[in-house]
Amino acid sequence: MTINLKNFLNDKRKMSKMGEFQELKTIDGLEISSVSADLYKNGRDDLSLFYFKEGANYASLQTTNSIISESLIWNQKSNKKSIKAVIVNTKNANTFTGKQGLESLDEIAKNLSKTLTLKESQSDEGVNEAVKIKDILFASTGVIGEKFPVDKINQTVQELVDKLRPDQNKLIWLKTASAIITTDTKPKLAYEEFSVGNKMIRIAGLAKGSGMIAPNLATMLSFIFTDVEIPSNILKILLKRVTQNSFNAITVDNDQSTNDMIAIFSTKKVKIGQNRNITDPIIQKFESALKRLTLNLAKQIVVDGEGAKKFITVKIINAKSMTSARKIGFSVANSPLVKTAVAGEDPNWGRIVMGIGKSGEKIDNEKLIIKIGETIVAEDGKISEHYDEAKLKEYMEWDSIIFEINLNQGNETFECFTCDFTKDYIDINTDYRN
Amino acid sequence: MTINLKNFLNDKRKMSKMGEFQELKTIDGLEISSVSADLYKNGRDDLSLFYFKEGANYASLQTTNSIISESLIWNQKSNKKSIKAVIVNTKNANTFTGKQGLESLDEIAKNLSKTLTLKESQSDEGVNEAVKIKDILFASTGVIGEKFPVDKINQTVQELVDKLRPDQNKLIWLKTASAIITTDTKPKLAYEEFSVGNKMIRIAGLAKGSGMIAPNLATMLSFIFTDVEIPSNILKILLKRVTQNSFNAITVDNDQSTNDMIAIFSTKKVKIGQNRNITDPIIQKFESALKRLTLNLAKQIVVDGEGAKKFITVKIINAKSMTSARKIGFSVANSPLVKTAVAGEDPNWGRIVMGIGKSGEKIDNEKLIIKIGETIVAEDGKISEHYDEAKLKEYMEWDSIIFEINLNQGNETFECFTCDFTKDYIDINTDYRN
Repeated sequence: MTINLKNFLNDKRKMSKMGEFQELKTIDGLEISSVSADLYKNGRDDLSLFYFKEGANYASLQTTNSIISESLIWNQKSNKKSIKAVIVNTKNANTFTGKQGLESLDEIAKNLSKTLTLKESQSDEGVNEAVKIKDILFASTGVIGEKFPVDKINQTVQELVDKLRPDQNKLIWLKTASAIITTDTKPKLAYEEFSVGNKMIRIAGLAKGSGMIAPNLATMLSFIFTDVEIPSNILKILLKRVTQNSFNAITVDNDQSTNDMIAIFSTKKVKIGQNRNITDPIIQKFESALKRLTLNLAKQIVVDGEGAKKFITVKIINAKSMTSARKIGFSVANSPLVKTAVAGEDPNWGRIVMGIGKSGEKIDNEKLIIKIGETIVAEDGKISEHYDEAKLKEYMEWDSIIFEINLNQGNETFECFTCDFTKDYIDINTDYRN
Repeated sequence: MTINLKNFLNDKRKMSKMGEFQELKTIDGLEISSVSADLYKNGRDDLSLFYFKEGANYASLQTTNSIISESLIWNQKSNKKSIKAVIVNTKNANTFTGKQGLESLDEIAKNLSKTLTLKESQSDEGVNEAVKIKDILFASTGVIGEKFPVDKINQTVQELVDKLRPDQNKLIWLKTASAIITTDTKPKLAYEEFSVGNKMIRIAGLAKGSGMIAPNLATMLSFIFTDVEIPSNILKILLKRVTQNSFNAITVDNDQSTNDMIAIFSTKKVKIGQNRNITDPIIQKFESALKRLTLNLAKQIVVDGEGAKKFITVKIINAKSMTSARKIGFSVANSPLVKTAVAGEDPNWGRIVMGIGKSGEKIDNEKLIIKIGETIVAEDGKISEHYDEAKLKEYMEWDSIIFEINLNQGNETFECFTCDFTKDYIDINTDYRN
């Protein structure tokens, strides 16, 4: 999934194109709605519902911040194997809201489960079993510490359920992805499909996030839906694996949210037979598609990083271990001095050297080779003879910048992604609550 | 050393006054000069020399960045017990300059040692012993990876030695402190004195640094001089101890330099007798003065942080361990979201919660009490009933902001210091090399 220099970098417009997608189709078994609950007071959609009439297998990961949202605390007590609905609110993080925050979720879950049960009982198929409150998941994003708007949300639950629709097209996906964002400037969507025999398997994903982004699922929500039947335990393994090189390989500001979650749901509509384990060719094909989809979403988050004008790839090669590669990669990618140099289109590779060393990992200066784009800037412990300031300055004007750091200490490779650090980041964040 | 709210915060002008000092006197046994070696091409002083005619006991600490300046590599081979001179250049970091960088130091040291030996031989007292190259220390600050300007420096050595003078007043100290700075907007100086019987003991210190500042001596040079005779091994212990709560308790941007060092020199002029150990009352008095002096210099660095408009104190109280207190303190102090909120004068305490949790330390929400200034903003796991947005907004307009985080988990206390994060930081750092 390396960005190809020739295809990607020579087209300066490409960065803004990254979020584009050819097609987005219905995930059978999934119903979606989004409405305005007046959380933002400007009429925009700010409350969304994902509903699985026949339940969904699922797996999720959450922030490693040691203070977490009441919504995530609620989810820890949810039904571990099958879920009926996910309700997502913006504007309020439901973090550090104490008893009021947690009790609000209880109230909303009771209301929603009744409303959904009633809806099911009125449908042609009737209802097998009432929707239980532990079949419901919550996700919240917004300001920390403000009273959770339980009344506004509860008053909107009926409308949310009434507007559920079982088919999705590009427009519906866009509307939903737009309803879950906060400071993001663009909705984030990705789609993959592949066939197994005469069956088509689909995966659709949406994400939000543009500040408080750092490794370990920081300020990010992502929901991924597939129609293929995969058990929850396998979903969990796959989700963990693909996240390492996608959502956990990006950083915008090294801050980490109290709230964020990534979840994958299988509606079980496309049957591929039981007893398929992790090494099964279909599961492996699914993992590849999931890897492409999550990397696509993760890159969209970076591209839409608060104030970002440039996309930066930090590629670590020949590291002695993956831990070491990740440490060095993020040490460079999180450096404000590296990120402001990129904003200033300055090939100031000395700051990359500083960032590498700051990791604390033992470095052999003589073996280290640093490339900016395709130009070697440092080797043999000093500035390279290939160093060409004019050529590099021209390269730095591009929208997507690649730093390759060859440690020559082993065989491990890791890529992480970040954006430049501009005055717009400061503008957005000095004035966030207004 | 807590900043007193009443004395400090009610006077908004106080922050810019922090660097002021009443008196700065001669440290007997020290000679200083600074000149322009045309490193900056605008005529400013950029090369400084500190010279101890009769040698000095000394101790030093250096950056923990794993890639370090050739100047620091040189110093590792220096005379461990006694030093004759320290030469400090700006504009060029002498980092990642390879063989050229290290050989340059050898050339300069040979030149300087000869020139100093000649000077001594011409003095009335004559010369006991030639100055050796291992009696010379280097310190460098500036751009990484550029060829070290050996010729410019070597051509200026004679002038530097000719201009040495054995007495210092406020003007000389200011001139010298101005010669070692880079992006700093102000020279940084501090002075302490105390008497022991009929003897006066003096300590003078200067420092530079305003970007790439993070714990563990990042982008900072500080040189401290005293006339009292203290052996090098005791200087080392004292320097380590006072640094923990001064230079290692500040952060501007969480980046960490490849270059920085803090060093203390004793000219041995004021004799207090041999065999004084670390628990001796005079040594303890000296440690207290050194603590005040280093904290003063450290705070001046933060106040002059790149783009800084406000001084932030993050005070952790009742932590279960010092490690935990430091982790949480720096997690908050390094958060760009906390720092941009302060720049925006927004009492967004949710970001403090995020910063606390990001440390990864286990937190008991119910026990946590967060204060902004003297107002409790969060307690009992939720927003406090004392929360008063209008009052807090007024407080946030002050120049010096205090966040107190009471963990109620133990007895440890730690204070760290940072500045707000403004658009000027981005301006300075997108355009640093020009």
